[in-house]
Amino acid sequence: MKENASHIVWWDRQNRKDEIMNIRIYNARILTMEENREIFEGEIQVRGNKIAYVGPTADAKNAVGEDAKVEGKVWDREIDANGNLIMPGFKNAHTHSGMTFLRSYADDLPLLDWLNQQVFPMEAKLSPEDIYHLSKLAIMEYLTSGMTANFDMYLTPDTVAQASIDCGFRTVMCGGFNDFSQSLEELEEWYLKYKVKKYVLEYNAQDSLVSFELGFHAEYTTSRENLEKLAALSHKYQAPLYTHSSESKAEVEGCIKRYGKTPTAILDELGIFDNGGACYHCVHMTDEDLDILKKRNIYVVSNPGSNTKLASGIARIEDMLDRGIHVALGTDGPASNNCLDMFREMFLVTGLAKLRANDASALDANKVLRMATVEGAHAMGLDNADVLAEGKFADLIMIDLHQPNMQPINNIAKNLVYSGSKQNVKMTMVNGKVLYEDGKFYIGVPAEDVYKKANEIMSGFTK
Amino acid sequence: MKENASHIVWWDRQNRKDEIMNIRIYNARILTMEENREIFEGEIQVRGNKIAYVGPTADAKNAVGEDAKVEGKVWDREIDANGNLIMPGFKNAHTHSGMTFLRSYADDLPLLDWLNQQVFPMEAKLSPEDIYHLSKLAIMEYLTSGMTANFDMYLTPDTVAQASIDCGFRTVMCGGFNDFSQSLEELEEWYLKYKVKKYVLEYNAQDSLVSFELGFHAEYTTSRENLEKLAALSHKYQAPLYTHSSESKAEVEGCIKRYGKTPTAILDELGIFDNGGACYHCVHMTDEDLDILKKRNIYVVSNPGSNTKLASGIARIEDMLDRGIHVALGTDGPASNNCLDMFREMFLVTGLAKLRANDASALDANKVLRMATVEGAHAMGLDNADVLAEGKFADLIMIDLHQPNMQPINNIAKNLVYSGSKQNVKMTMVNGKVLYEDGKFYIGVPAEDVYKKANEIMSGFTK
Repeated sequence: MKENASHIVWWDRQNRKDEIMNIRIYNARILTMEENREIFEGEIQVRGNKIAYVGPTADAKNAVGEDAKVEGKVWDREIDANGNLIMPGFKNAHTHSGMTFLRSYADDLPLLDWLNQQVFPMEAKLSPEDIYHLSKLAIMEYLTSGMTANFDMYLTPDTVAQASIDCGFRTVMCGGFNDFSQSLEELEEWYLKYKVKKYVLEYNAQDSLVSFELGFHAEYTTSRENLEKLAALSHKYQAPLYTHSSESKAEVEGCIKRYGKTPTAILDELGIFDNGGACYHCVHMTDEDLDILKKRNIYVVSNPGSNTKLASGIARIEDMLDRGIHVALGTDGPASNNCLDMFREMFLVTGLAKLRANDASALDANKVLRMATVEGAHAMGLDNADVLAEGKFADLIMIDLHQPNMQPINNIAKNLVYSGSKQNVKMTMVNGKVLYEDGKFYIGVPAEDVYKKANEIMSGFTK
Repeated sequence: MKENASHIVWWDRQNRKDEIMNIRIYNARILTMEENREIFEGEIQVRGNKIAYVGPTADAKNAVGEDAKVEGKVWDREIDANGNLIMPGFKNAHTHSGMTFLRSYADDLPLLDWLNQQVFPMEAKLSPEDIYHLSKLAIMEYLTSGMTANFDMYLTPDTVAQASIDCGFRTVMCGGFNDFSQSLEELEEWYLKYKVKKYVLEYNAQDSLVSFELGFHAEYTTSRENLEKLAALSHKYQAPLYTHSSESKAEVEGCIKRYGKTPTAILDELGIFDNGGACYHCVHMTDEDLDILKKRNIYVVSNPGSNTKLASGIARIEDMLDRGIHVALGTDGPASNNCLDMFREMFLVTGLAKLRANDASALDANKVLRMATVEGAHAMGLDNADVLAEGKFADLIMIDLHQPNMQPINNIAKNLVYSGSKQNVKMTMVNGKVLYEDGKFYIGVPAEDVYKKANEIMSGFTK
């Protein structure tokens, strides 16, 4: 890549978080993910944390504006994309970042045993500061997989938010309320702090990197009384609610035993879906359940990697899409998946749909790309980070097409979904800042420090 | 990495193919894949194309031998592995390398339509030279995924062999005889040339990089008469036979219509299995079929990525292992998968087994690693490339553990299978030569030349 100044000098400036940078990426193939817009050749111009121009180079005017010139320079950095693909970053619409410490620790157990015997006892040992460090480890992995935002349900939103802010990453936290963890007062406090008052950073003051949505763990960990209180809180703010639902067969059977209804039906009856939101997993769903989600405009966030590894089952994605239900993708937490890789999720969601339907033409690549980007952004409330267009957040990635798994270039969308891998992520930019490039992290702390912390936390627990 | 001399100088010497190089990799975690040997810390010493020592550094004597000293130096290169993992390279036990040109070209069709309408007509346009270039593209992808050998069924073994020799890669070619392609005379000629006479290189003259096994495309493309002739050829040399079998439901039903028997039963009856070998895919198998494979000591090469993308089904891997059938892994060709990635195959083979069994404990990670390495080598007749031990081929890889998806280091085997990706392949060594390192290829030709050729071939066909 051609640089206006040395990479180190450039990075030093980027690290001064109040600095507004102008970056131009040219000689690129561009997939904006806008509807009916094909991949084209051109350039993208970034001013601060927003996209200032995206289109053919021939049509590009001085989109960056006058004050850039006043500073005596137009571009802080010009990047020759060398024909590589620029596209919106992937959105990880369901995860538990802080669970990195349990990666490959508690495997090969059915969901409910795994939760009760392994996960909950280990999680009880975590401090908020532990979660800060473990979330950073997850953010690094998101960056390697071209993810520019995550929807994170975990125990301590304040330290989750701090990890994202310190790394420069975009996170929507989600309440994980249940009978044993978090309180409704806390949910409301976090909602007001991060979503309503738009908790802002000391830089880019008009836009926060972090937000918060009301949410709870699941029907099976939350009493009817608490579910009713959750619905009331949601009604108070006309706020959507987010939850795990219908992940395992045992969970659905338990709910039917308790209420005589599926989780979807009882949650609907209790008013949980009145203001929209999303359900995570949705593996074991009746036709009636799907009709409810459609009627209430509830997003499904599918987690095929986790559902596969925990043997939870194959979700009815095509049936959902046929009904017009919006479907996004998430990795789930690193303890169940065990990795945080949107390429895995994309291949699996279509592969499992093909196996389920006995039909190789099921769930084509373009639909999958939309789930991994636009639908994910909308599910998380990030309407300003869905596509590449003027005024949208500069949350974008460069996909290396100069790799054997992307050649020949017969069909880039299919290459991404069917043969793409983390190895193809050449650059990940969040909020106008390059956080990952050519295998190196620019998150304000050395990678090795984050690894060391994670190992220290885990060895403290297992001693 | 600390180098004895500059990397460029070292690589120049490696490129002189008659040069015998002594390489020491120290400060490594080592997984030899020998039975009941845990991961340990130590070093590995390579002399020429063989492993001279593998064990703790404290026990390492001058394993490289006297003549190294005579040349005035002990090591041509010393590599500090920085705690990363050294393990045997993965073995891709079933593929069609030359099909790279069809990647993402012909997708989303059922197997038999896909073969007849898309694949066969396009393949008819290929020249032997095209296959040479397209095989190189596949070899590059194998290297990125830590594969050090492939078992390659394709149209022109001579140019497949040349591609591997020119890159320094290890390939066992497999006959793809059927009623429409290749002849029994050709099969016999290739077998004598590459397997019996051990076609040798101008360097490392005692060991060839390439070999050949008798094989045919499938029961459904080969007449009974030709199957009988194949069995006779196998009997003549007491040579194993290799074939696709029971990949799709339609294929099995067609065979039952033709013969009143499953493919496995009729192939057995015709003497195809008398000298061992392997069947690729084996998705739709009866208990009786599995009993036949066990009795005849036939390997199964499973291709979960291809079986998923083509909606062929989920193979009965656990039932096979329970019977004592040996199971290896292959990517199948890049037109059906669409990528050549052993990490995808490893996650899928266990993930699909878990889904099939509704049991998250099905097919544990250690079994999967064995399938991807030792069993693959044995299925291909590469008994000297199965584990890391003195005297074995130096076909090995370095897995980067300094990546977020490998942290914390709770369990390296599980990390490899459940969260590993191409991004973790830091180095791939075949036959004692480093062919891929830190994202760069050392295959005697620039990567861009190979990409250009592949695109030229494809655009010539689609004009």
